[in-house]
Amino acid sequence: MTKKYVYLFKDADGKNKKLFGGKGANLAEMTALGMPVPPGFIITTEACSRYYEDGKKLSQDIIDAVFETLRVVEESAGKKFGDNKNPFLVSVRSGAPVSMPGMMDTILNLGLTDISVKALAERTENPRFAYDCYRRFIQMYSDVVIGLEKSHFEKVIDEMKKTKGIKLDTDFTADDLQQLIQKYKAFFLQKKGYEFPQDPKQQLVGAIEAVFRSWDNARAISYRQMNDIPHSLGTAVTVQSMVFGNMGPTSGTGVAFTRNPSTGENKLYGEYLMNAQGEDVVAGIRTPSTIADLKRDNLVAYEQFVLAASVLEKHFCDMQDMEFTIECGKLYMLQTRNGKRTGAAAINVAIDLEKEGLRSKEDALCTINPQQLDELLHPTFDSKTLKKIKEIANGLPASPGAASGAIAFSAEEAIKRAKNGEKIVLVRLETSPEDIEGMSVSQGILTARGGLTSHAAVVARGMGRCCISGCPTVEINEENRTVKIGQKVYTDKDVISLDGSSGKIYDGFIPTVDPEITGNFQTIMSWANETRRLKVRANADTPYDAKKAREFGAEGIGLCRSEHMFFDDARIPVIREMILSKTTEQRKAPLKKLLKMQRDDFIGIYKEMKGYPVTIRFLDPPLHEFLPHTVDEITKLANDMHLTYDELNRTVNDLKEANPMLGHRGCRLSVTFPDIAEMQARAIIEAAIEVNSTGGNVKAEIMIPLVGDVNELAFVKKIVDETAKKVMKEKDAVVDYSVGTMIEVPRAALLADKVATKAEFFSFGTNDLTQMTFGFSRDDAGKFLPDYYEKKILEADPFVRLDQDGVGYLIKLASQKGREVKPTLKLGICGEHGGDPASVEFCHNSGLDYVSCSPYRVPIAIMAASQAAIKEKKKANK
Amino acid sequence: MTKKYVYLFKDADGKNKKLFGGKGANLAEMTALGMPVPPGFIITTEACSRYYEDGKKLSQDIIDAVFETLRVVEESAGKKFGDNKNPFLVSVRSGAPVSMPGMMDTILNLGLTDISVKALAERTENPRFAYDCYRRFIQMYSDVVIGLEKSHFEKVIDEMKKTKGIKLDTDFTADDLQQLIQKYKAFFLQKKGYEFPQDPKQQLVGAIEAVFRSWDNARAISYRQMNDIPHSLGTAVTVQSMVFGNMGPTSGTGVAFTRNPSTGENKLYGEYLMNAQGEDVVAGIRTPSTIADLKRDNLVAYEQFVLAASVLEKHFCDMQDMEFTIECGKLYMLQTRNGKRTGAAAINVAIDLEKEGLRSKEDALCTINPQQLDELLHPTFDSKTLKKIKEIANGLPASPGAASGAIAFSAEEAIKRAKNGEKIVLVRLETSPEDIEGMSVSQGILTARGGLTSHAAVVARGMGRCCISGCPTVEINEENRTVKIGQKVYTDKDVISLDGSSGKIYDGFIPTVDPEITGNFQTIMSWANETRRLKVRANADTPYDAKKAREFGAEGIGLCRSEHMFFDDARIPVIREMILSKTTEQRKAPLKKLLKMQRDDFIGIYKEMKGYPVTIRFLDPPLHEFLPHTVDEITKLANDMHLTYDELNRTVNDLKEANPMLGHRGCRLSVTFPDIAEMQARAIIEAAIEVNSTGGNVKAEIMIPLVGDVNELAFVKKIVDETAKKVMKEKDAVVDYSVGTMIEVPRAALLADKVATKAEFFSFGTNDLTQMTFGFSRDDAGKFLPDYYEKKILEADPFVRLDQDGVGYLIKLASQKGREVKPTLKLGICGEHGGDPASVEFCHNSGLDYVSCSPYRVPIAIMAASQAAIKEKKKANK
Repeated sequence: MTKKYVYLFKDADGKNKKLFGGKGANLAEMTALGMPVPPGFIITTEACSRYYEDGKKLSQDIIDAVFETLRVVEESAGKKFGDNKNPFLVSVRSGAPVSMPGMMDTILNLGLTDISVKALAERTENPRFAYDCYRRFIQMYSDVVIGLEKSHFEKVIDEMKKTKGIKLDTDFTADDLQQLIQKYKAFFLQKKGYEFPQDPKQQLVGAIEAVFRSWDNARAISYRQMNDIPHSLGTAVTVQSMVFGNMGPTSGTGVAFTRNPSTGENKLYGEYLMNAQGEDVVAGIRTPSTIADLKRDNLVAYEQFVLAASVLEKHFCDMQDMEFTIECGKLYMLQTRNGKRTGAAAINVAIDLEKEGLRSKEDALCTINPQQLDELLHPTFDSKTLKKIKEIANGLPASPGAASGAIAFSAEEAIKRAKNGEKIVLVRLETSPEDIEGMSVSQGILTARGGLTSHAAVVARGMGRCCISGCPTVEINEENRTVKIGQKVYTDKDVISLDGSSGKIYDGFIPTVDPEITGNFQTIMSWANETRRLKVRANADTPYDAKKAREFGAEGIGLCRSEHMFFDDARIPVIREMILSKTTEQRKAPLKKLLKMQRDDFIGIYKEMKGYPVTIRFLDPPLHEFLPHTVDEITKLANDMHLTYDELNRTVNDLKEANPMLGHRGCRLSVTFPDIAEMQARAIIEAAIEVNSTGGNVKAEIMIPLVGDVNELAFVKKIVDETAKKVMKEKDAVVDYSVGTMIEVPRAALLADKVATKAEFFSFGTNDLTQMTFGFSRDDAGKFLPDYYEKKILEADPFVRLDQDGVGYLIKLASQKGREVKPTLKLGICGEHGGDPASVEFCHNSGLDYVSCSPYRVPIAIMAASQAAIKEKKKANK
Repeated sequence: MTKKYVYLFKDADGKNKKLFGGKGANLAEMTALGMPVPPGFIITTEACSRYYEDGKKLSQDIIDAVFETLRVVEESAGKKFGDNKNPFLVSVRSGAPVSMPGMMDTILNLGLTDISVKALAERTENPRFAYDCYRRFIQMYSDVVIGLEKSHFEKVIDEMKKTKGIKLDTDFTADDLQQLIQKYKAFFLQKKGYEFPQDPKQQLVGAIEAVFRSWDNARAISYRQMNDIPHSLGTAVTVQSMVFGNMGPTSGTGVAFTRNPSTGENKLYGEYLMNAQGEDVVAGIRTPSTIADLKRDNLVAYEQFVLAASVLEKHFCDMQDMEFTIECGKLYMLQTRNGKRTGAAAINVAIDLEKEGLRSKEDALCTINPQQLDELLHPTFDSKTLKKIKEIANGLPASPGAASGAIAFSAEEAIKRAKNGEKIVLVRLETSPEDIEGMSVSQGILTARGGLTSHAAVVARGMGRCCISGCPTVEINEENRTVKIGQKVYTDKDVISLDGSSGKIYDGFIPTVDPEITGNFQTIMSWANETRRLKVRANADTPYDAKKAREFGAEGIGLCRSEHMFFDDARIPVIREMILSKTTEQRKAPLKKLLKMQRDDFIGIYKEMKGYPVTIRFLDPPLHEFLPHTVDEITKLANDMHLTYDELNRTVNDLKEANPMLGHRGCRLSVTFPDIAEMQARAIIEAAIEVNSTGGNVKAEIMIPLVGDVNELAFVKKIVDETAKKVMKEKDAVVDYSVGTMIEVPRAALLADKVATKAEFFSFGTNDLTQMTFGFSRDDAGKFLPDYYEKKILEADPFVRLDQDGVGYLIKLASQKGREVKPTLKLGICGEHGGDPASVEFCHNSGLDYVSCSPYRVPIAIMAASQAAIKEKKKANK
């Protein structure tokens, strides 16, 4: 049996979006519901795959099936496709399984030719309408199928308007339009060397092929890659009888949502335009009326539409986004889909849907895209102000939020000026770990270089600080301390504003609006908390972060990077003194100073966490990161440390590494300098005793990073245990602490059964694990990954979306091996992926105990965890 | 039942070396054979483990067992340990399961005290003998048990000799010796604050503990690490009745081999010294006699010894290394073990053993340590000259061989001077890929920095070039072009000599001896070839290397690094032109030039390989490696390329990467620059057609490096297949080629079932696979790995000895997953490990088809492959 590639709306299964595309499936559903849907048919996604298999050619069997099915539709309409007397016209649209911008959208009025347009004019007794349809068709077809840009045709129209002294398209007479068509056709011939296609069959095949082709255009690919949509899905095509909104004053076309997509308010929301076809509503030449006005223009159609909207919403149990056309007073429904909405609207709609009995709590939760909650968790620019001004440059939206401030060109400068109460935007070529404090005191960070996973981006997201990265049109002159954006040169006196959610940069100050966690937000989070199994912790390095984390609902700290505290201005000299010590003896003095500092840090964090577990990671980065690199800085430090420049410079060079990511860092530092590990263990335990003595209930989890062999872990664990024993004896106190490890080196995952014998928990450090499993340096991969997306080698950035096949394999293997020898082993994840919804779902499915992410992503992770649990439950009940 | 920790020689199982150590087991064997072995007992290796478990303390139950067993031995001797009238004396020696230098060796005459020495003097009527024993004992015991250095005591002896006006120890009278003892004891008291131990039991327990302790001293640990001996094995202790070679002129002691350990000649080889104890033979104060002379001194003992030697050799079926003592004319056998021998001797002995019917061919092969064949494959210094001179410095023996030449301070200089016929030793702080041609034209390479796996070391081994690395006492002044070694400053006029096998550096010229593959070497290799299953290929980048590889028996090239040809002086400008091109169009000209060069390279290699398969790897290193880095070099290149300094410098900086190992390299280059891949594919196929046209039978295997996802491989394979098809059509010819990949990224191993769908072979690139599995940068790990060995976290350098647990896991997993979907998948390994015997055995056991290594290690790999096959067969027959 040959495969069926073409289905009438009434024969298609409206539940099978994978085969029929979202648009096609919903047209089938609407047809089944008895809605006034113009008849038509769907060419399946499988036909799209065939098209690519056959070398980008529509095979004859599919073409035959198309025209066979078309005949059925024609018959019901009583017209004939390609007929010169009573021509049957169709619209052709793309419809992928997942809604996807960037693909070919719509061709209307297909089937018209020089001859049949005349017949249409005669039969409708409306030559203006007929020629309007034809000129639209030529324009659209030339654009999307042939590739002649729309702007060329618009130029022709504009010239014509000038000549005729008119303003609106609707003012063209039938004669004008006929002239226009002649000009279009002449232009086509001139550009292409052949006449505009006059064979309706050829037009239809060309349009279908154009839809399939557009599945693979650059914009569509990059959208899929950003949204993790498999390239293999393919798109369907819908071919539908034309109905005409441009047939005169009683015709029209519009779009509407069943609820307000910005706020979620349960009130029909939309607009329409009389005597128009689809594209006119969007084009903005004429101002459309709001949907409520339709009541006045055509009460019957209005009430019909209100009913249809209500039926559709109840049928799909979600807010709908619909397209309709009124032809000579009669309503037709052209499309419906679940409506896109803002984060705030998503929450309000979900709660209303539950209240209205349309969805259970669990089903209502599933209407929310966890990622969208992000919008609610950062300050935003006042939208009214924003409407009035234009951005001066665009960069990558690296970390959401909004920030206005005066420009600082270095971290030190930012720190100094912020201390004086200035609001600062830090502008750098790129950032490095030394800049962390400067970043944290700034309102926002702008870097000329780096991608979405550059140092600036990652750190800013962790801090919840707004950041724009990778903005090459921003020309920084570090020497003169100026930055040129567009034509203007900015100095430290100038204020700029960054929108980290859009990547837009503005001149001057813009007021911001603080995030508000409304009652509904709280309600929805409590629903999510009720349903999820996976715990959610936060990555937090300071008491401030810890506090934020708790406010956002974190159930502990999954990653406290003990070294982040070292970059502080007051501390870095002590760290450097420690690094530059040549003997254990020499290291004692700086270590003593650090002990006190670290203890105080941990006391602050423990207090904020009020009995929730706190996972503290031992010193991780290569020591080189703490040292100065410029001649000036080295000279200064050498003076401070009573060293010669050469001595210090030699140490700095000795510590340089060819591949620092794979160098002397993590637990390797503890092996070389056990006294540092001892100091950190002591600080952790002493701080716990201190907080416990005032009624605290500290649960300290000591995490040893970069373990690749159980012997490394055993070596450091021994230091920790011995130190803890000693301190507890000294202070006559007991502390609830455990020792575990990050699984971030592939070898540790492969040998997890051995590692687990010495670990009470594993925390998957998916950043490093991804780097080593792929062999991708996060700092360098930005150079070649764009090629990977373009050439369809990778679908998503593995540093953003967890690679479930490879890295996930290691996570599952390590979890299984680890629990085999130690069933009580606690399992978590603490990479950047902990806040990515798809990755959270993977963690849930892999049986992990918790994910840990930036405080600002905790609600997102909670929502994703909840949805993962619901999905699992539904699957089990099937 | 409590464990038995102490066994009499006659009760011990001579086959169980793991429990009794090599020395103890062989003493048990000799006792069982009825040899004249002084009775004694063994404290097992399990007692050693107990000692460490008990916190480095000998537990009471073991002490009790020792003295219980000692009583049995005393009784048979008719004396009593610790007795003041007829004291029983013992020797205490260490005996690990594997022969191991660096541990405590021997304490003789244990049991003597101030009182019992007098009794010994009286009973033997030989006071001189008795006091000689006592002073030796004090000296040895103080040294090895207490830790007072031998040199202190030697100073006392020397002073005494001066006072007495004598030269030899044997000239001391009994009175002299008594005085000496007083001085020794006084010195001991002064240093330690207590008297020399006078309790024989305490002496014995102290000695046993000292042996156990020495298992863990730094030298022993580093020896185990270098030789891959598990730290957990532990050592046994043998306690044996003393027999005395120093009892007068009819007494003596000696060591002998059953065959000549340098040549393998089947003739007793050894020496002895009358009136002496063991250490005198080695000390070199008196010149020992050759073993043949014993015939004259004591014919009976001689004939007894010859018989014993013959029995032992037949019993152990291998050349023996024996110690004996003659006490008052009577022969005692103190020890036997399989004799260490040179590579040449190993081959000759193995062949003789087979001829003599002592071993089958297979068993004879197993007496050869494959690693030792290395000695036969490099030029060596003339040993006579070497005896007369002393080294000026010591570095790491990075690549074996011997080289003499004038010093060159840069690769360019080396190339220029070598062209003029000078013999050059290249002296650098460290080397980088640009130095490769300079290294290849030099006789040897000396680097001040870097370890055994530094760039210089790895490249030199690959080239079979002699190299010494990591020699910090060599002070290079690159500006003045001088190098200071010791007190002398060397310039480019000076000649130095390097012994890459020992790490020694000599002043001036030393004649070298070329390696000779004698008939026996050939014979043994043919035996090895008969038995092995694993194929052995070579890593070779040039026709010269390919020729060498064939001479050494390689069955193909497993890794031809196509980029190694790019570093040539004539080519690097073309490569740079290619890298600096901004468009595909611009790249066309340099690619065309490269095409010709590469084609010629491949033609040369194919011709040498005469139908054996040649695996060519596509361009692998980051492009940055090909660019200049100093201001001068950049300026020059900018001029050559008609660029400004700034333009070029920006490109150089843009190509710099934070972690180049994980950066834009391998197949990632092919993704970004498909035209480079196309050029290489064309060169490979065109060269094959050319060689085939003159009767060649080329088998080209095209290897895509650094694949982490099947899509990467598919992308490049498509380019290769399309290009090959095109070229074959152009030339109307067919080439036998296949496309495969290196498995060197962990993710590729994890997803090998997917990768295998597009690969005809996998070659495990264990260098990179080790880097990424461990997260160790090969260039940086040298800084912390020594700590890892010292702290017993790792036992061996994973870049030298394949990590079977972790990296091996991935190899096995990938092999299994790959063959599941493609049973015909060819599997090989081409990292540095391919020439390491233990790693070769692992590859055999994992079912790989071949290993590939440096040409100079091919015979070693062949031997290891043969032994692995024999081992497997024996196991199956068990």
